[in-house]
Amino acid sequence: MEKRIFNFSPGPAMLPLPALEQAQRDLLALPGTGISILEISHRSKAFAAIIEQAEANLRTLLAIPDDYHVLFLQGGALLQFGMVPMNFLRGTGRSADYVVTGSWAKKAMEEAATQGQVRAAWDGKAGNYKQMPDAGDLQLDRNAAYVYLCSNETIQGIQFRSYPDTGDVPLVCDASSDFLCRPVSVGRFAILFACAQKNAGPAGVTIVIIRDDMVRRAPKDLPSMVNYRVMAEGKSLFNTPPVFAVYMVKLVTDWLLNTVGGLEKMEQINRRKAQMLYEAIDDSNGFYAGHADPFSRSIMNVTFRLPNAALEEQFFKEAKEHGLAELKGHRSVGGCRASIYNAMPIEGVQTLRDFMVDFCKRNAK
Amino acid sequence: MEKRIFNFSPGPAMLPLPALEQAQRDLLALPGTGISILEISHRSKAFAAIIEQAEANLRTLLAIPDDYHVLFLQGGALLQFGMVPMNFLRGTGRSADYVVTGSWAKKAMEEAATQGQVRAAWDGKAGNYKQMPDAGDLQLDRNAAYVYLCSNETIQGIQFRSYPDTGDVPLVCDASSDFLCRPVSVGRFAILFACAQKNAGPAGVTIVIIRDDMVRRAPKDLPSMVNYRVMAEGKSLFNTPPVFAVYMVKLVTDWLLNTVGGLEKMEQINRRKAQMLYEAIDDSNGFYAGHADPFSRSIMNVTFRLPNAALEEQFFKEAKEHGLAELKGHRSVGGCRASIYNAMPIEGVQTLRDFMVDFCKRNAK
Repeated sequence: MEKRIFNFSPGPAMLPLPALEQAQRDLLALPGTGISILEISHRSKAFAAIIEQAEANLRTLLAIPDDYHVLFLQGGALLQFGMVPMNFLRGTGRSADYVVTGSWAKKAMEEAATQGQVRAAWDGKAGNYKQMPDAGDLQLDRNAAYVYLCSNETIQGIQFRSYPDTGDVPLVCDASSDFLCRPVSVGRFAILFACAQKNAGPAGVTIVIIRDDMVRRAPKDLPSMVNYRVMAEGKSLFNTPPVFAVYMVKLVTDWLLNTVGGLEKMEQINRRKAQMLYEAIDDSNGFYAGHADPFSRSIMNVTFRLPNAALEEQFFKEAKEHGLAELKGHRSVGGCRASIYNAMPIEGVQTLRDFMVDFCKRNAK
Repeated sequence: MEKRIFNFSPGPAMLPLPALEQAQRDLLALPGTGISILEISHRSKAFAAIIEQAEANLRTLLAIPDDYHVLFLQGGALLQFGMVPMNFLRGTGRSADYVVTGSWAKKAMEEAATQGQVRAAWDGKAGNYKQMPDAGDLQLDRNAAYVYLCSNETIQGIQFRSYPDTGDVPLVCDASSDFLCRPVSVGRFAILFACAQKNAGPAGVTIVIIRDDMVRRAPKDLPSMVNYRVMAEGKSLFNTPPVFAVYMVKLVTDWLLNTVGGLEKMEQINRRKAQMLYEAIDDSNGFYAGHADPFSRSIMNVTFRLPNAALEEQFFKEAKEHGLAELKGHRSVGGCRASIYNAMPIEGVQTLRDFMVDFCKRNAK
């Protein structure tokens, strides 16, 4: 069999091996059905059990309050960048506050600008997006349609430690790249969404956790597929959902609950993995220069640079020979990035850390 | 191993066994990568080769002209029901002509009505949606923003044999349920779209074939994910596409090209399969009552009724015991429906035909 490597891609990213193995085992026919998960009706009892278990797992893992809907939608985080302002900004006469912490929050603000007025409640550009703001740094509009933030910026490798209190103004969170990496108080948010392909499953499904009062506010003059009300009333089955991707979310959350033991445990493991790499950076005497300010460091995406581009190329080449792949930074910023989502084994991070220490020894002047 | 059954579901539907087997074989790691197709970066060389091959296969199978884009989008046909009017009706001051042939065309017209004025250029309701219109039956508006039709109505089991000529007015076709079942002149359409889960792959990807002049007309004040221009300029990689579903489209179209031998061959097989079932209906002396008028009969979805509901329940129960599943009609119309898409083996149709003949013998008075 093909040897699996350690894949540090920012997403799509590694999945837990037991989930992949179960999907493989049952791919020609789901037990008890004689039909592949790739062929099964979304109205079948077998699939109803799967989507209900996926939702139940998420509700347990995140202690989601009862007045929140859990939706399995398509279109990635980027469709959410559009749906949020289509549903809650357009036609309101208000503006929306965006906390511009990096590439993804900026992109979301640009998408919203097609639908209404937007405002940067904070912008980290002057500081080269190295840090997250403190709650006191935000200049919030009390009449804003909503406040929007991105909990973890994959490209810059920075992550919120705590979230601002926005009072009565709905807080919307793009949690795509740190969803399920640690416990989170869902009740702080009006909407919390995440594409699956970092911590929850394969590309092709986006999980939207949305408070019921928001759903009821969604306007009527929108096509169904971009209308939160229709999606919530249809319980993600208004049309054919991405059946296989939902099934994988079920398998991945089964693993999180039953093998890992929940999000507190997952966070401990994630902190331990991140610490290994940040120590390799901090102990390198400046050979590795971390991008993020230490207090804003992401436990999901570790971003750093080497002294020059030639050494970075050499680093990628040798890493690959050690079975360590996808360590290039995003094409918009360059440098190096190790994405260490939930499914990246500790062994993979140890191998990378050992390689980094050795590479530094051999190449530092 | 679990025994596979004959699944007559209207979609998601059966997939070619060789495609499922290859997906299963390579699920833990794509050959040459060490990474699962469920984990691989959409920016990787390996995935670039897959999506390019999927597009090339579709271009070969359908002889798609060079001035058409082939897009792999999310959201199902239902998002297209919204995107077409968001891009080409809203704000034009025109109305759009819908050919209302059954449940899906009607649904598409309702979705468009959220974005602008719509008109039924024909409506089969009075005839209980048993037939497709002739070209001369349509009352077309020469100034319409576009003319919209559904090439095959899965719920009613009726299918266009030829398409109307709409002159300079763009013709939009929802080909979801008969895509790739026979050759089609793509050049007749401004847009032809199909969700994958009937003939092209699993649920989670929608193929949109769109002429370049339409793409260039898409407006700027739409979020990216519902904007055809952005999707075409990004070559389906503006954001993370549904990687696994695209991979399955590649495997299914490989099978169509290399094993079946193209769409002429596929149509021959499909006609033979449909004929077997329609003959069982026509030769039953009225025991089975077909819904569709003979000239409008679909070669994908064969709809019929038994003399009463009790017999229908008995029919479903006994069919299941013969390994014949999902024969219930859509919940909105009842009755029976056998969906016999490309991947349904002739053997499955023969088994159903034999069962129908036998059931009739035993139960007809």
